[in-house]
Amino acid sequence: MMGLDAPLSEQTKEELLQRLEMLVMNLLEELALYSSSEGSGVTRLLFSKEWLKAQQALKEIMGNNGLVPSFDEAGNLYGTLQGSQAELPAVITGSHIDTVVNGGRYDGAYGIAAALAAVQYLRETYGPPLRSIEVVSLSEEEGSRFPMAYWGSGSITGERGFADIANLEDGDGVPFLQAMKACGFGEGSARTALREKGSMAAFIELHIEQGAVLEREGLSVGVVDAIVGQRRFVVTVTGEANHAGTTPMHMRKDALEGACAMVILLREEAARHGEPLVATAGRMTVHPNVPNVVPGKVEFTVDIRHSDPVRLEAFCGWFSEAFREAANHRGLAFACAEWFREEPTPMDSRLKGMLDAACGGLGVSYRRMVSGAGHDAQMFSRICPSAMLFVPSRGGISHSPEEYTAPSELAVGALVLAKLLYRLGYEGELA
Amino acid sequence: MMGLDAPLSEQTKEELLQRLEMLVMNLLEELALYSSSEGSGVTRLLFSKEWLKAQQALKEIMGNNGLVPSFDEAGNLYGTLQGSQAELPAVITGSHIDTVVNGGRYDGAYGIAAALAAVQYLRETYGPPLRSIEVVSLSEEEGSRFPMAYWGSGSITGERGFADIANLEDGDGVPFLQAMKACGFGEGSARTALREKGSMAAFIELHIEQGAVLEREGLSVGVVDAIVGQRRFVVTVTGEANHAGTTPMHMRKDALEGACAMVILLREEAARHGEPLVATAGRMTVHPNVPNVVPGKVEFTVDIRHSDPVRLEAFCGWFSEAFREAANHRGLAFACAEWFREEPTPMDSRLKGMLDAACGGLGVSYRRMVSGAGHDAQMFSRICPSAMLFVPSRGGISHSPEEYTAPSELAVGALVLAKLLYRLGYEGELA
Repeated sequence: MMGLDAPLSEQTKEELLQRLEMLVMNLLEELALYSSSEGSGVTRLLFSKEWLKAQQALKEIMGNNGLVPSFDEAGNLYGTLQGSQAELPAVITGSHIDTVVNGGRYDGAYGIAAALAAVQYLRETYGPPLRSIEVVSLSEEEGSRFPMAYWGSGSITGERGFADIANLEDGDGVPFLQAMKACGFGEGSARTALREKGSMAAFIELHIEQGAVLEREGLSVGVVDAIVGQRRFVVTVTGEANHAGTTPMHMRKDALEGACAMVILLREEAARHGEPLVATAGRMTVHPNVPNVVPGKVEFTVDIRHSDPVRLEAFCGWFSEAFREAANHRGLAFACAEWFREEPTPMDSRLKGMLDAACGGLGVSYRRMVSGAGHDAQMFSRICPSAMLFVPSRGGISHSPEEYTAPSELAVGALVLAKLLYRLGYEGELA
Repeated sequence: MMGLDAPLSEQTKEELLQRLEMLVMNLLEELALYSSSEGSGVTRLLFSKEWLKAQQALKEIMGNNGLVPSFDEAGNLYGTLQGSQAELPAVITGSHIDTVVNGGRYDGAYGIAAALAAVQYLRETYGPPLRSIEVVSLSEEEGSRFPMAYWGSGSITGERGFADIANLEDGDGVPFLQAMKACGFGEGSARTALREKGSMAAFIELHIEQGAVLEREGLSVGVVDAIVGQRRFVVTVTGEANHAGTTPMHMRKDALEGACAMVILLREEAARHGEPLVATAGRMTVHPNVPNVVPGKVEFTVDIRHSDPVRLEAFCGWFSEAFREAANHRGLAFACAEWFREEPTPMDSRLKGMLDAACGGLGVSYRRMVSGAGHDAQMFSRICPSAMLFVPSRGGISHSPEEYTAPSELAVGALVLAKLLYRLGYEGELA
């Protein structure tokens, strides 16, 4: 028996990776069929026809592979590999089945496919575990159909509920409730979405990095230290719109010049501050935005992320003060309004240590890193020990049909996941 | 007889100013009636119903005031005060009757009203001149209906012709030719628009400044040294659109940060260069322009103006080189395309000297200045000695219902114009 219960020979490891690669690739190819986009991109919005077909296909796959499938009322699909000591808290692993519009094949789907592949291998190799292992296909994470994200994981952890979606509509005016009911979900339609705190020993999410750090450093796996906190602001700089020909330079109150000085300040200070801080001015609107008028007003967004809440707070305080000074210095009016805030979420230390050990034991190159994007794991971390691991994204590209991770890299991630699931499910760690 | 043929007493000057003020204000109030905008703004687009009514009203006013009115085929209206030596080249004075959309009461209209007021005063005081004096209400200057400006003055000087407008349409798809014919103009409909070079001794245009220089310096009149040359460019900066959370600062190719650095460079170098150079980044478009994506591409316009062609050229060369370096330094791609070019136009030295002398003799505070905006005088200057004078614009505001010049300031401009017309028309200078 080739296994994860002892050091692997190179040959055994190679065979195991080939097996996992085949399983993961088959699942990813099947999931990519359920898409409303033409071409190579994938579009699978919450409660769409394609979304429902994907969840139903997964349910059948789970059933065919010795897992007990069940939906909850929020549209989350579980496949449970029953443990011999079913009274122990279960290990949950998976990710989200929904996508952005014209996204890739890997974001979310990979975490489900790899979990199914790892559990299939474990079951076929070791039979039933001690703890139950549940593979979850979370209904929604992206926020790409309705103006709300983390519906799937949030419903499980209590961060989201039916009261929150009562008045939501999609871009076509279809109510959330109506779309949910058309798929057979909604209050009381299936088992309750909300789970009791003690019912979960751990949540493990495997995901593509969506950045280029692993690729550039030639590493196979990223063990996520923390998911960054995010703060987003709209900055408004107001000067005076004036004739570009008749207003001498010294009489101008050029809002664009002021805004540009702020963008430069932001960039310079963020670079000086160093990783893992990132600061981005992503959207800018200029008024009146015509070639021969000195801009009178500029609005731009500032997105600041850091894994350390104190440093995040300090940087936000710094930039708003520095911007205000830059505006005052130029005789410009300045306003800064926060419109989005998410606190940093550290991942569970024991699980991170076990992931480090799994990589080490399997001879897989890895690093600790911060997740600059939000993930379902940050919801789960509020009610159970949670961890994430990343595999490389080619060119750092995500949310695009160009999203790509090599099959061999996908297999390595699944192998590390399998090793962790073995320790948690079969050896009963984290009791 | 109170007059311009000798130094004015304070009392005479005051009476003359009151008379000119009343005449100018009456004419401006009447012209403001012909507008398609609600409220205080004026909209009078070329060949619109309101435009035609305004020209017809002016024709009647001219006839009632001893001027011989006549249209040319381009829609320009002349009112001629016949000279006793009609074989001498005529003096032309006036401005344009069209406006921007929801513009003010003064831009263009003031130059016509002041010319009519000045000529009425001269005729009533001195009778017929030696040279003919022609007040012209030019059909179009703003380019606000069709994608072409200076139709009126350009048709007179040969810079515009019927071949140029054959395929032009307005924003509603109405052909230029059709709109022109509906008003009774077009090829052969009236006297030829194109004038012979020797038929004009001078063109004098009185206009609001559209800037705040005279107001800030507390001066009554600006004698225009030159109309600036203009060069306009579109700059394209291309980097890489990336995830704002997962792309560390040192891995970014942020097109917005690069563009902002260029805007700052432009501003700093323009300030260092000094007047009359002005440099403006007026329009900026960011792609994809969403808060959580590092901008991959930015386009912005650069508008450079100077009265000296050599310095204008040198500055354009400097900025494109400096921008290219800033882009290279950041690993960004850079392109710069010129899409508009107009050479600087110096005004006639003898006429400027006569305007200086007129201001001096009348005790009117003035300065020489550059016009940062284009005007009909730059067309006329190609075929006859041309000059411009400015009166203050409150707050530098123009192309807006807020456009304002105090009646007493309007009268001072008309007085200086009258003095110059007296010297040219009655004393026969510039023979």
